[in-house]
Amino acid sequence: MSDTEITVMPGRQDIVLSRVFDAPRDIVFRACTEPTLVPRWWGPRHYNTTVERDDVATGGSWYYISRDEEGVEYRFHGVYHDITPPHRIVATFEYEGMPGHVSLETVTLWEDGAGTTRYVGTSVFQSVADRDGMVQSGMEEGAREGMSRLAEVIRVLRERAEW
Amino acid sequence: MSDTEITVMPGRQDIVLSRVFDAPRDIVFRACTEPTLVPRWWGPRHYNTTVERDDVATGGSWYYISRDEEGVEYRFHGVYHDITPPHRIVATFEYEGMPGHVSLETVTLWEDGAGTTRYVGTSVFQSVADRDGMVQSGMEEGAREGMSRLAEVIRVLRERAEW
Repeated sequence: MSDTEITVMPGRQDIVLSRVFDAPRDIVFRACTEPTLVPRWWGPRHYNTTVERDDVATGGSWYYISRDEEGVEYRFHGVYHDITPPHRIVATFEYEGMPGHVSLETVTLWEDGAGTTRYVGTSVFQSVADRDGMVQSGMEEGAREGMSRLAEVIRVLRERAEW
Repeated sequence: MSDTEITVMPGRQDIVLSRVFDAPRDIVFRACTEPTLVPRWWGPRHYNTTVERDDVATGGSWYYISRDEEGVEYRFHGVYHDITPPHRIVATFEYEGMPGHVSLETVTLWEDGAGTTRYVGTSVFQSVADRDGMVQSGMEEGAREGMSRLAEVIRVLRERAEW
């Protein structure tokens, strides 16, 4: 299992996350899309996320609330442009604390051979300033922690499937 | 009424269209969002566009088919992330001839004083290559023509409102 690589090129509008998970693609896809699993991996570890709505299908919408240790709420929502098992998720993302600033999130899963799966997640922003603001907000650390948590979920799903 | 300005900066992932329309914002918004008006302005003049589905609301989806003079069909679809009258439209866009390549479209309308409205449309792509491919496909000419057709629709709506 590799660490998460995060690519942020100057002047570009995207952030690219890449990681290899030690599980077949269908298990990684399930971990990424199953609403009951979202609170186990979405965002940093010290936030408590609840899934208010998650219609995981092309044309569906999602709405999550994360609460920090003091109970402060952070609300997020978007729509699913494309859910194509077992390899593609395309969705919009908006943090309600920054209304009107929307990103397009694409997750692509490739079978990497030997039962491993490469996850590539691209976030593309409406402007370079929006992208840079997201980077400056410390998203990298949160994203790495989220991906580590996702790896744990995937490990448990894989062990159950093999059992 | 100005011409359409199109901004395509090297190495960026977006295309920005800007135009001033000689009408109040609510009329421009209506012209942009009313499904029955879409065939009058969407795309170049020599295409015939039909609206197969257009649920113009946050969380809704849209599906259009354009036919050229020989009847060849070009299908497009997406979801509405945000419809906020009278000033913001955020939607996804996919041409089915290039499946999996999605852009995020944002239209913002500003009142420019004296009853005119500035339209700014941003298309942001998943990669620089996707953006450059769209530019090379000749979208600029089609976009200028679409915006000219939109100006005609807006003129008619404004004249009816004033009548």
